[in-house]
Amino acid sequence: MTGMSMFSYRPARDELAYTFGGRLPVAHVRSGEVFEVYTEDCFGGRVRGPADLPSLVCQAGQLNPVSGPFFVEGAEPGDTLAVHIVSIVPARGWGVSATFPYFGALTSTAHTATLQPPLDERVWVYDVDRAEGVVRYWASASDHLVELPLDPMIGTIGVAPAMEVRSTIVGDYYGGNLDTPELRAGSTLYLGVNVHGALLALGDGHARQGHGEACGVGVEIATVTTLAVELIKGVDTAWPRLETDAEIMSVGCARPLEDAYRMAQKDLTAWTVDLCGMQVLDAYQLLSQAARAPIGNVCDPNYTVLAAVEKDLLPRLHPPYGDVHARLRRLTATTAAGDTP
Amino acid sequence: MTGMSMFSYRPARDELAYTFGGRLPVAHVRSGEVFEVYTEDCFGGRVRGPADLPSLVCQAGQLNPVSGPFFVEGAEPGDTLAVHIVSIVPARGWGVSATFPYFGALTSTAHTATLQPPLDERVWVYDVDRAEGVVRYWASASDHLVELPLDPMIGTIGVAPAMEVRSTIVGDYYGGNLDTPELRAGSTLYLGVNVHGALLALGDGHARQGHGEACGVGVEIATVTTLAVELIKGVDTAWPRLETDAEIMSVGCARPLEDAYRMAQKDLTAWTVDLCGMQVLDAYQLLSQAARAPIGNVCDPNYTVLAAVEKDLLPRLHPPYGDVHARLRRLTATTAAGDTP
Amino acid sequence: MTGMSMFSYRPARDELAYTFGGRLPVAHVRSGEVFEVYTEDCFGGRVRGPADLPSLVCQAGQLNPVSGPFFVEGAEPGDTLAVHIVSIVPARGWGVSATFPYFGALTSTAHTATLQPPLDERVWVYDVDRAEGVVRYWASASDHLVELPLDPMIGTIGVAPAMEVRSTIVGDYYGGNLDTPELRAGSTLYLGVNVHGALLALGDGHARQGHGEACGVGVEIATVTTLAVELIKGVDTAWPRLETDAEIMSVGCARPLEDAYRMAQKDLTAWTVDLCGMQVLDAYQLLSQAARAPIGNVCDPNYTVLAAVEKDLLPRLHPPYGDVHARLRRLTATTAAGDTP
Amino acid sequence: MTGMSMFSYRPARDELAYTFGGRLPVAHVRSGEVFEVYTEDCFGGRVRGPADLPSLVCQAGQLNPVSGPFFVEGAEPGDTLAVHIVSIVPARGWGVSATFPYFGALTSTAHTATLQPPLDERVWVYDVDRAEGVVRYWASASDHLVELPLDPMIGTIGVAPAMEVRSTIVGDYYGGNLDTPELRAGSTLYLGVNVHGALLALGDGHARQGHGEACGVGVEIATVTTLAVELIKGVDTAWPRLETDAEIMSVGCARPLEDAYRMAQKDLTAWTVDLCGMQVLDAYQLLSQAARAPIGNVCDPNYTVLAAVEKDLLPRLHPPYGDVHARLRRLTATTAAGDTP
Repeated sequence: MTGMSMFSYRPARDELAYTFGGRLPVAHVRSGEVFEVYTEDCFGGRVRGPADLPSLVCQAGQLNPVSGPFFVEGAEPGDTLAVHIVSIVPARGWGVSATFPYFGALTSTAHTATLQPPLDERVWVYDVDRAEGVVRYWASASDHLVELPLDPMIGTIGVAPAMEVRSTIVGDYYGGNLDTPELRAGSTLYLGVNVHGALLALGDGHARQGHGEACGVGVEIATVTTLAVELIKGVDTAWPRLETDAEIMSVGCARPLEDAYRMAQKDLTAWTVDLCGMQVLDAYQLLSQAARAPIGNVCDPNYTVLAAVEKDLLPRLHPPYGDVHARLRRLTATTAAGDTP
Repeated sequence: MTGMSMFSYRPARDELAYTFGGRLPVAHVRSGEVFEVYTEDCFGGRVRGPADLPSLVCQAGQLNPVSGPFFVEGAEPGDTLAVHIVSIVPARGWGVSATFPYFGALTSTAHTATLQPPLDERVWVYDVDRAEGVVRYWASASDHLVELPLDPMIGTIGVAPAMEVRSTIVGDYYGGNLDTPELRAGSTLYLGVNVHGALLALGDGHARQGHGEACGVGVEIATVTTLAVELIKGVDTAWPRLETDAEIMSVGCARPLEDAYRMAQKDLTAWTVDLCGMQVLDAYQLLSQAARAPIGNVCDPNYTVLAAVEKDLLPRLHPPYGDVHARLRRLTATTAAGDTP
Repeated sequence: MTGMSMFSYRPARDELAYTFGGRLPVAHVRSGEVFEVYTEDCFGGRVRGPADLPSLVCQAGQLNPVSGPFFVEGAEPGDTLAVHIVSIVPARGWGVSATFPYFGALTSTAHTATLQPPLDERVWVYDVDRAEGVVRYWASASDHLVELPLDPMIGTIGVAPAMEVRSTIVGDYYGGNLDTPELRAGSTLYLGVNVHGALLALGDGHARQGHGEACGVGVEIATVTTLAVELIKGVDTAWPRLETDAEIMSVGCARPLEDAYRMAQKDLTAWTVDLCGMQVLDAYQLLSQAARAPIGNVCDPNYTVLAAVEKDLLPRLHPPYGDVHARLRRLTATTAAGDTP
Repeated sequence: MTGMSMFSYRPARDELAYTFGGRLPVAHVRSGEVFEVYTEDCFGGRVRGPADLPSLVCQAGQLNPVSGPFFVEGAEPGDTLAVHIVSIVPARGWGVSATFPYFGALTSTAHTATLQPPLDERVWVYDVDRAEGVVRYWASASDHLVELPLDPMIGTIGVAPAMEVRSTIVGDYYGGNLDTPELRAGSTLYLGVNVHGALLALGDGHARQGHGEACGVGVEIATVTTLAVELIKGVDTAWPRLETDAEIMSVGCARPLEDAYRMAQKDLTAWTVDLCGMQVLDAYQLLSQAARAPIGNVCDPNYTVLAAVEKDLLPRLHPPYGDVHARLRRLTATTAAGDTP
């Protein structure tokens, strides 16, 4: 890779997108291409200090911007797009989090509606220290200080839905606001293509987040994210799937939360059946003992739960999607080595 | 500890209990005592091969037996009982799992009621190999074989509720069927005492389970479990909490699953406020970035989710419950070393 | 009936029960007997004015008392107890309602846990005017006055569970805190018998309530309730069912609320299959177009939804449970005529 | 009205719309105008007999077509559109219902995912007899016959969302697939306007349905529906509301079902506060005793529950939205008289 000139995209403010679907592409990419995308944070970079309350400085409908969409040449409905995350580099030395009125898991919301007033709106600014590999939290009402491991992830990534246009706040079958820490550098995301050109877009980087993103907001950062894409023709993928060197994972997005769990476990069961040639109840049994179920978010319109299993525990595994993850991993080994924290 | 004669309890078949509360104690234990309990598996040891379908060999109301209850001397409502799990030793060389009609996450149930017939009932027998530290899975319909790490846990442990008597199938504020892999050797469980003598009981060992226990049944084993208890007088605990060397954890049990998540996160927030002297929104913010949320079960009458955070990430932490975990850990160091796989 | 001396039970304060199960019977009744029970309100009569905040005047664990239990002679597990509500007469000229901290549908609760403070606790006292057939609501913060139809119901009625003892706050398969306005005079409730003698108990009268009992509290009243019971030997009933002159109804109690809906619809489907000899999908189809689904409560530990269908819409209907409803209706016609508002 | 030539719209097959938003208007209407719309059934008229299984004769993405959208002159974001349903006339002498694979309340679905096979797919054809005012159900597997009251309703009606394009299968803040029997002739629906021209569309008529639409499909019919619209400038409506001669109602759409209940009750509470000048807890209390909560559907992507209260029970009620319901009722009295069954 070294020495090659890589395509790089950085949106102007008015190019930021707030939907999946319904937008014209900003650039074309080819299967096998490695490219770099600048992503803004979920507040569009407007929240920079404790006085910048999100409800004051952000307009309704202008939260969680994504960069793109990118037209993937040759992508057609029925194909699968493999998106390998080569690296996620924080673009600034700071990140922000906040409590946002009636948003989050430990507050009533527009849907879990109560007559109680909202929690106080408050902003926390974090240091993002790439050299030390940490983010620094300061309490707002005391001098407590904590260093947490830097673990950058992309919160929102997806393609255009089939016939709908969806807000970037939502996670669903086309990807979107999945908000799972598993979307870090080294992961490959598989998304079914629903429209001509796929129309991939991404944003909402987090320097890190806890499981469930309880307050509704991670350590929100702008990023320079490097992706490698490959198109898998004629292979359908109904719901987002992930692969890392160690694991395969299925994603479920739904309410209530148990439905997200069910969807992910069922998809991972079916995937295991396909890859290993096991009978379905045998796969169900094996995964019941072997699978992890990391919670993504419990705050967005659809909650996210994953089902994950180590590839080493799946006997006679056919490499998923023709071993594309390994191929993209090798292709981008040099790039990744230089850029990840 | 060495050389001391340890109290050991092994129930006769007709001494097995199927409720928390409503039973007379089988023995007395003292604060600071280390003792050993034989626990039967969730099928009462009746399922030993593929032909022993649970719905045939087990009677209704005789699933998930526990050993006990044990009367803790001096325990009164308003106290907290710390139960340190010193070791969990599989009592037999095998374990079983099964699909049980209308039970589990990927089937309709008596509550998530549909008109569909149940899944096939089927039994899987596992090798439990302590020497190798693995359990061995064989597929029922093919010759797939997988070795999974042995990771013994206690599925069901609790004290008597305040005014109710509850089936051992249920997990709730008094403990019970929590079905979380975090209840392994080395963990200390904190339970609020609701009745004179606390009336601790336990059972439902698993050689291991996946997150959520998708099929409703772990790798079920009989165990010899060694516990150390300490009574913390005058300190109330509303919901079960756990402590390990590395983490503190709160437990939530509820339906839908997001409510279990909310309960656990809220309790961990309050615990953090207490232990660190942080303001509540500051604790909420910190945990939103730092907490894990491991799913226990998505199959029992109340689902279980935990909230966990590393103690190293909590600034100026007062040792929980007067450092009882460390004390019990030291007390039992010799015992544990000899018995855990 | 006239001229007959009817058995009447009025509990002393310390005879009030707070559980289903775990209590000795207060009296025996026979199949075919008509008897009268005094029931206290859900606050034990302690809340009598705006200053009597429930959290101050009521002790934890002493909410929602029931009168009983009554031992039904000859009742054994596997039988069904038919309980016909002959009349529900308000015992006092007033009723009360309240907002109770962290209880109700439009507030966060111990299960739907948030960091928000509770709503204000407040008491409303209603006139219960039997002569006019109304209850009178006065606003607390203005002079708004509304007359609502008096429509007395029993909120909590059930038998002992099989092996558990449950708080009277809970509704489940044995009845309990169902909180549905359909439990009014003229209804027959069918409950499966789980223990020797059935152990029927009841309380928690409401002068009326809205669907879902949004604030968690109806217009709570003490009552004199007249019941007629009949024992149906050897016929099992898994979940509570109701019958009126016009309709048959099945009850579902669960969280989330859709599971209560599913349970009720599935049971009504099965009941229709049994009574009419229809194929199951045909019954499902018919009820999908014909059934009502009145919400009982959305505030108790288990929410309640009913499924109801007019008997006239069920072709070739065999009278449910051997026509016991009609029989008890005739038996008690004179009694009822004199006592219902 | 008599003698006036009324605008009438009947879509050609390729003019049917499958989304709210993302479509150009098919016609313009003015505030105060009465007009007639032909709506196809949810299967596009393709299911006409038992052999026409929906999964065979309907294409994915071509279910639940709507007619429109209609551009309402002068409508701008921040306005409210009042849509009075003057009449709903079945366009054919028959209707259909069906079990659709993995759709409905008493089956697992793509979201409530299980490993069970789907229920049998089956079609029921109903007579729609306007003269007798009934629909006739025949069992598929026996000769059971039932006549049910004809009670036509519009299942799907809404305006364009703010920035999204949504499938007509979904119900949400802009209306859509609400599937409530309350949307019958005589009702006025209030919808917030989100885009220039509002872009009203409707379809999915039912000759009748039960509460919750358990099997996922009502008695589906094509209709000729007459509407009268009025624009209320500068008045916002966050979620759909209904008004009849007797009641006002708020709509909630969400999962789990209790959230739909909460949303509707909270909105009705706020509406009552606005219309009557009551304090919020006083309104909460009154509605807790007085409100109905009819379930719309428990099968669509968002479930629907309404909250309804009789206007006579609301003291000092200001006529909602400037009395537009009464005005449209008078305006269309003649039209309605001639056309409703």
